Amino acid sequence: MEKPQVFLDLIKHRGLLLLQWVLLSLVVGALAGSASAWLLLALEWATDYREAHTVIIWALPVAGIVVGLLYHYYGADVVKGNNQIIEEALEPQKIIPLKMAPLVFIGTVATHLFGGSAGREGTAVQMGGAIADQFSSWFGLRSLDRKILLAMGVGAGFASLFGTPVTGAVFALEVLIIGRMRYEALLPAFMASIVANYVADLWPIAHTHYHISEVPHIDLQGVFWTLVLGVVFGLTARLFSKATHFWGNLFKKYVGYPPMRPFIGGAIIALIVYLMGTTKFIGLGIPTIVASFEQPMGQADFLIKILLTSFTLGAGFKGGEVTPLFFIGATLGSAMVWLVPLPVGLLAGMGFVAVFAGATNTPLACLIMGVELFGAESIVYTGLACVMAYLSSGHSGIYGSQRIGSPKWRHNTHKKGQRLG
Amino acid sequence: MEKPQVFLDLIKHRGLLLLQWVLLSLVVGALAGSASAWLLLALEWATDYREAHTVIIWALPVAGIVVGLLYHYYGADVVKGNNQIIEEALEPQKIIPLKMAPLVFIGTVATHLFGGSAGREGTAVQMGGAIADQFSSWFGLRSLDRKILLAMGVGAGFASLFGTPVTGAVFALEVLIIGRMRYEALLPAFMASIVANYVADLWPIAHTHYHISEVPHIDLQGVFWTLVLGVVFGLTARLFSKATHFWGNLFKKYVGYPPMRPFIGGAIIALIVYLMGTTKFIGLGIPTIVASFEQPMGQADFLIKILLTSFTLGAGFKGGEVTPLFFIGATLGSAMVWLVPLPVGLLAGMGFVAVFAGATNTPLACLIMGVELFGAESIVYTGLACVMAYLSSGHSGIYGSQRIGSPKWRHNTHKKGQRLG
Repeated sequence: MEKPQVFLDLIKHRGLLLLQWVLLSLVVGALAGSASAWLLLALEWATDYREAHTVIIWALPVAGIVVGLLYHYYGADVVKGNNQIIEEALEPQKIIPLKMAPLVFIGTVATHLFGGSAGREGTAVQMGGAIADQFSSWFGLRSLDRKILLAMGVGAGFASLFGTPVTGAVFALEVLIIGRMRYEALLPAFMASIVANYVADLWPIAHTHYHISEVPHIDLQGVFWTLVLGVVFGLTARLFSKATHFWGNLFKKYVGYPPMRPFIGGAIIALIVYLMGTTKFIGLGIPTIVASFEQPMGQADFLIKILLTSFTLGAGFKGGEVTPLFFIGATLGSAMVWLVPLPVGLLAGMGFVAVFAGATNTPLACLIMGVELFGAESIVYTGLACVMAYLSSGHSGIYGSQRIGSPKWRHNTHKKGQRLG
Repeated sequence: MEKPQVFLDLIKHRGLLLLQWVLLSLVVGALAGSASAWLLLALEWATDYREAHTVIIWALPVAGIVVGLLYHYYGADVVKGNNQIIEEALEPQKIIPLKMAPLVFIGTVATHLFGGSAGREGTAVQMGGAIADQFSSWFGLRSLDRKILLAMGVGAGFASLFGTPVTGAVFALEVLIIGRMRYEALLPAFMASIVANYVADLWPIAHTHYHISEVPHIDLQGVFWTLVLGVVFGLTARLFSKATHFWGNLFKKYVGYPPMRPFIGGAIIALIVYLMGTTKFIGLGIPTIVASFEQPMGQADFLIKILLTSFTLGAGFKGGEVTPLFFIGATLGSAMVWLVPLPVGLLAGMGFVAVFAGATNTPLACLIMGVELFGAESIVYTGLACVMAYLSSGHSGIYGSQRIGSPKWRHNTHKKGQRLG
């Protein structure tokens, strides 16, 4: 009679564990998904308002100093943002304060309203992570459980922001350690991401759709060009990461008082936008991303976006990097139609996901993002481009707290276990 | 002047490394892809011949003893098949003899020609792995390089057999260690899989297409049913793995001389097929798999297929497990349309990939297989079903040599590092 009892205990134990994570994913998913939906609604409003009243951009330095003061006096313990979440998920030490969520929300909307160039996924990930982490203290969860909760929050935030549930889950598993993936949080991350995406869609939001109109059957020539493009996209991702760190260090070196950095940076950005005479390169830049899939973009568009975004974020404005990375990749891919014998939409799609893969070191999440955004037909092109971009960006990335699990190149074996820094 | 020199050295070093893997993947991909294509052609011929001359099934015991003698006197060092490749990739010791490829080819075609119930992916993986491993000695490659070569062979074989290049690559990375993925072989596995799939398609073969005609937008009810189905599919996978080991152990215990096992087993199968009066459950069973997507299958179909396949393989016949797993999952999913309020095609598709995920412990490869075979629309259903089936199959699987990297359930922490056995 012993074996049936052991078996029943096993069922009960696993059933309870399963129930706990399913219920938590419903709650975390609902909260993080709603937060993402509100962010999307706020950013839509902010973007529309700014485009209708571009004079507001002159107030960017003021918005900058306000956000800077807010973080300096009230948010010093949440200022590390995405890196803070990665660090806590790698080595749990201190629960992330819930105020990370409203602070990054306000900071991001202000950045976009007044014309900074930034993204939004960092915001969703920080909101999701901060919300999920609150349950760590409520439930008295252990270190492993906290890691799982943070993965749920990251996945839920990412998934609901872009309308890509599976990508969100895989991103949460893949982003911590470069070159490795671990499955402890597999089901909770999937559940939270799917629920968050479902709940976000209950709000009156619309995710942007991108369309690759033509995907030729891949042959060896196509493989060759995809490898070449992958290298280009990877080096571009590396340039973006280095540029963000460069501006950040420059501001730190020459402007001692943190709140002054976005003030000065905001003034410079406002001036640049005035001189350029276009708002094409500030904000999220979604109309340009969509257009990249239809027609060739300018050869220098991606460089201008790299400069403006890395400068905006380096100066201390809030927001994410991912939508600008989409902009950079899509415009660069689109512009290469003159050189590469592949359709413009496919080139834009490859750049869209591959630059992101190189900058975040998450090739499989980006491969799946290609599927969720563009459909299954282009998976070989986008997948191989993501893999090659991942290798070519080297040990660089926008998340300095990522740890190197499997070095990308064999002569870098000594880097194993290090942080990107 | 030192920095530019270091930089040039880096470019040269990485460029050469890249060139080496790209060239190797062209060769390995071309050979493994062609081997898969020949296997597909041979199996098509064998299946057609058997269906036209079903009397041949009475010769199954004779085919069994011939294959048994062949392996006993000539193939003792390649008889472990897929597990041998997994073991060598985990702990490289001895190059896999090339004869593994022709032996498993002959054994598999004989199994299908004379009416055993088996698959084909094991054959393709063993051919790809054995072919790739030959380059280990030719090039004097090191241990890490041998692991990468084996991943290329596994990916190339799998990819070209099913026409799913990205799935093949991810499967090769995911199959070694349960609950972990490592990216050392990322690019070589992708390249070899894509090239193998391309080369296989140059031969006059056709991959089977499966069609999910209707995918409802997922809501919480859909999530609930997907979790329930995932548990059912995972337990079914576990049953299949246990059944294969059960028959294998039974034959070992009662039949001392290995070549006699498939003789006796073949006689029993021939008798069962005669009594059932149908060839629906032997061979690959592709017509039934395709039909599962269109209409509800019988409630017991999956059980009969589990019995026949586990018995065939346990008796020592050659072939793979994956196509029977597709059969089992698709018919079971399809049969559950009476209980679960989801379209029959979607249920069949979920079962198709999820039972496979549970039996091989490769949830992400199976998620991607769903995309490559059925398109992007069903990814949330198939993905979540694969994740849940992976968890529910526990620490069981058809590859006993898989190592447990991250235990699936927290009270199994002590199993970390063990082989499935």
